[in-house]
Amino acid sequence: MEKIKTAVIGYGNIGHYVLEALQTAPDFEITGIVRRNPAQAPAETTPYKVVGNLAELPGTQVAILCTPTRSVERYALEALALGIHTVDSFDIHTGTVALRRTLGEAALRHNAVAVMSAGWDPGSDSVVRALLEACAPKGITYTNFGPGMSMGHTVAVKAIEGVRAALSMTIPTGTGIHRRMVYIELEPGQDFAQVARRIKEDDYFAHDETHVLQVEDVNALLDMGHGVNLTRKGVSGKTQNQLFEFNMRINNPALTAQIMVSAARAATRQHPGCYTLIEIPVADLLYGEREELIKRLV
Amino acid sequence: MEKIKTAVIGYGNIGHYVLEALQTAPDFEITGIVRRNPAQAPAETTPYKVVGNLAELPGTQVAILCTPTRSVERYALEALALGIHTVDSFDIHTGTVALRRTLGEAALRHNAVAVMSAGWDPGSDSVVRALLEACAPKGITYTNFGPGMSMGHTVAVKAIEGVRAALSMTIPTGTGIHRRMVYIELEPGQDFAQVARRIKEDDYFAHDETHVLQVEDVNALLDMGHGVNLTRKGVSGKTQNQLFEFNMRINNPALTAQIMVSAARAATRQHPGCYTLIEIPVADLLYGEREELIKRLV
Repeated sequence: MEKIKTAVIGYGNIGHYVLEALQTAPDFEITGIVRRNPAQAPAETTPYKVVGNLAELPGTQVAILCTPTRSVERYALEALALGIHTVDSFDIHTGTVALRRTLGEAALRHNAVAVMSAGWDPGSDSVVRALLEACAPKGITYTNFGPGMSMGHTVAVKAIEGVRAALSMTIPTGTGIHRRMVYIELEPGQDFAQVARRIKEDDYFAHDETHVLQVEDVNALLDMGHGVNLTRKGVSGKTQNQLFEFNMRINNPALTAQIMVSAARAATRQHPGCYTLIEIPVADLLYGEREELIKRLV
Repeated sequence: MEKIKTAVIGYGNIGHYVLEALQTAPDFEITGIVRRNPAQAPAETTPYKVVGNLAELPGTQVAILCTPTRSVERYALEALALGIHTVDSFDIHTGTVALRRTLGEAALRHNAVAVMSAGWDPGSDSVVRALLEACAPKGITYTNFGPGMSMGHTVAVKAIEGVRAALSMTIPTGTGIHRRMVYIELEPGQDFAQVARRIKEDDYFAHDETHVLQVEDVNALLDMGHGVNLTRKGVSGKTQNQLFEFNMRINNPALTAQIMVSAARAATRQHPGCYTLIEIPVADLLYGEREELIKRLV
């Protein structure tokens, strides 16, 4: 079997779990890891080439982008320009359409595939939301997150001036409305009120009820469990009160990483272009012979 | 907007709900209804052509097959031979791969698309099962049905010699194991024990705990509500105990019909061939501009 030659771009939390998911999958080969400072690689990366640039990993077919969301476009364009497929978990909902156009053009130009927003939300939850609209086109879907740590929001807080360490917890208050509980350690000499204001004004937080709390030790609060409760009540044809519910309780970065690896497999099976998960057949995410999958899953 | 010209083949329970779903959808036009006895059409079909043969409905692009599952192959091959796309809700799990090959060959030969097993199970549940394997490749999925009336099993009982009327209820007993409660009215002069044996030997029932009960009036028991509880506990990468659950409480034929209509839309968007729902991007099931769907659902 020809294995899918894959590089991990960025080696933080998600990168660590992507490496594990790649090691577990029967059809992937790891070409190496790209990070800003290749000399400072953790012990578990020892078996692999750790380099500063994707071009140093020849033969790579897919690059899995484990960088902060706001760096996705830059790293994706670099990879696509080399004719390498990309997978990202870009999670700024308001930027999805624009990024899809940008990556789509680059992918077509270089005969490559970009799979974007391929985490769990956006990602697998998006697939569930789309599927439930196919089941009941009229009605309301509520996506309730948490309680749990939001990786994207936590990274966004960490990037704000004056923040030394941070944790952003998502608390569901029902019907898709959430509270953000943000725990921060301050950089020395910073004013808490000013930093808190910067956080609340950030686009990640501006639309939700956000509470910022100063703590001594963010690390003591960290737990990467997360959850979703997604409901739809709607109408199939002319029949009212069709009820649907999707729940999960999961390790957040582990699930994101697994879905990115599944999406990397799917990337090798699409025509050139940029795709969100709702634009890819779910069977393409899975390892195995097509007829065996159908026998087992349909 | 060019509407999708669609015919309803068979006008029983599912056919009735398919007509309603087509009437509700903004992008469909109903070319007519095909039934064995066109003269005996119910009042709500009055606005439409009711004919004995699909060839009498010129311009039809998609035929939605609302026939018993065991007639699907015959009607699908007839439609595909006319270059007309087909949608069915074929639900004999053991026959899925063989039917997909047969319809796939016919579809390719006539430059058409067949979407098969496009109800809720097989169908939307299959998409959820496949998606959850992409989220946690190792682990166990349990699909628990009911309590509710199984359309396929009820039709199968009705086809058995000696049965005048029937209802097959599916009762979940946990971990994907089910009891079948079969309520029947006997034809005059039939022996209950013999009819019950025939039912229990039928491939629909041979693998489950099945109880057959004789009643005076099956109609008094009929309720088309149904349910699913689908769970997966599995491993993402190397991270254990990832928990997923999908629930629904729905009108059974209304949901089947709506998914078939959504699949009819998707049929017009695939390359020639035969597809199960896990092989079709979920976005293709939905009405609307692609970027609008992505903005709203991803």
